Amino acid sequence: MKNYKLVIQYEGTRYQGWQRQVTTQQTIQGKLEAVLSKMTGESVEIAGSGRTDAGVHALGQVASVRLETSLTSREIMNYVNQYLPEDIAVTEVSEVDDRFHARLHASEKTYLYRVLCSDVPHIFDRRYVYVHPEKLNLAAMREAAGYLIGTHDFKGFSTNKKVKKSTVRTIRRIEIVQVGDEVRFVYEGNGFLYHMVRIMTGTLLEVGRGERDAASVLRILESRNRELAGELVPGKGLTLVEVRYE
Amino acid sequence: MKNYKLVIQYEGTRYQGWQRQVTTQQTIQGKLEAVLSKMTGESVEIAGSGRTDAGVHALGQVASVRLETSLTSREIMNYVNQYLPEDIAVTEVSEVDDRFHARLHASEKTYLYRVLCSDVPHIFDRRYVYVHPEKLNLAAMREAAGYLIGTHDFKGFSTNKKVKKSTVRTIRRIEIVQVGDEVRFVYEGNGFLYHMVRIMTGTLLEVGRGERDAASVLRILESRNRELAGELVPGKGLTLVEVRYE
Repeated sequence: MKNYKLVIQYEGTRYQGWQRQVTTQQTIQGKLEAVLSKMTGESVEIAGSGRTDAGVHALGQVASVRLETSLTSREIMNYVNQYLPEDIAVTEVSEVDDRFHARLHASEKTYLYRVLCSDVPHIFDRRYVYVHPEKLNLAAMREAAGYLIGTHDFKGFSTNKKVKKSTVRTIRRIEIVQVGDEVRFVYEGNGFLYHMVRIMTGTLLEVGRGERDAASVLRILESRNRELAGELVPGKGLTLVEVRYE
Repeated sequence: MKNYKLVIQYEGTRYQGWQRQVTTQQTIQGKLEAVLSKMTGESVEIAGSGRTDAGVHALGQVASVRLETSLTSREIMNYVNQYLPEDIAVTEVSEVDDRFHARLHASEKTYLYRVLCSDVPHIFDRRYVYVHPEKLNLAAMREAAGYLIGTHDFKGFSTNKKVKKSTVRTIRRIEIVQVGDEVRFVYEGNGFLYHMVRIMTGTLLEVGRGERDAASVLRILESRNRELAGELVPGKGLTLVEVRYE
């Protein structure tokens, strides 16, 4: 048995998210495990760096998996890409130390949320952007984003899942850039809670529309109360760009 | 009746090309005419700047159309986008001089052909690139492209349609650029014959693979013989980027 690191790209549109489910075949993990099991003739389980929700895309999701195979890394990649559906691809396979685990050892992730600020459709990006024609105040959103940077308890920015684990995370960077008609939110941090990127983006959009002031973000952090934060924006606008390991 | 200029964006994947056909509903012109006819309550005919083939995309196709309506240009655009399928959109509507005709008055067009030089899939671009993993010699392709620039009889680079019209066209620019794993071919000219961009690209790829020398392009021009030119590459890699009017 060797341990492998996979880098995976997918368009989330047709899927119920990353995590394998018994009730549906339409998950990324499920599709990958099915192809790898077919390849090795054994039941295979892969560990993703984290779950992505229904509709969320990935440019560089990472997973680790132990495989009994005589194929080279390159041959594994070619085999898998031949049998995966056209909206999932493995873009890198490398043999790694036996102790490597994609979730436990992930040190930083980058997410991108794309907002189209126009009521004129962009055909080529339609599956990857959230359409939001109202004008946005970028300066106000950047001020609010500044309050989120650093190490905080982000419980107020996550959907309560009644888990007792720590809800403290560190965000190293939030960049808000205008690219043509689009406003792009880039988040870098050591980890993100369930729905956290989408709730932060929804909250920043409310600031951008002038519906709440930038400093209200501080009250959400302090109160740890989801009710005070903004709406959960749609999964289709979100892409997991990169997962880094120390 | 007022005359309007429309700028149209579409993903060609699901369509049998631009031109209306009696045998299929799946044409861009057909979809646009159906929605505009519904809007005005009259049968509407639009004139595109030119046909695009099955599978070919457009960022900025242009059409002209006469409409009897009390709606503003903006209202026409919003109405049309509400009823068009999600892979077609009108991005500009403007009232123009009565004599304006999208095909007859087009002075220059820009086409883009995208080639993915990798056997690792790019999920997000899969509908817009031609996958061609073999290595390409860019310098040789650029030399060959140089011979195509200028005013020539391009009959050898088109699929013979037994028309007696002139096959002389002027190409002002061909740019071949590497963007990551991708090689992009940009063509600017005063007009392009049937299949011309795809046959030129197929021929340049044969030069890039070392299967023919750059100067062979001159013999295709001189002979006007389609048999001497390269293969017709797939429509999915091609995008009509822009149509310009003087």
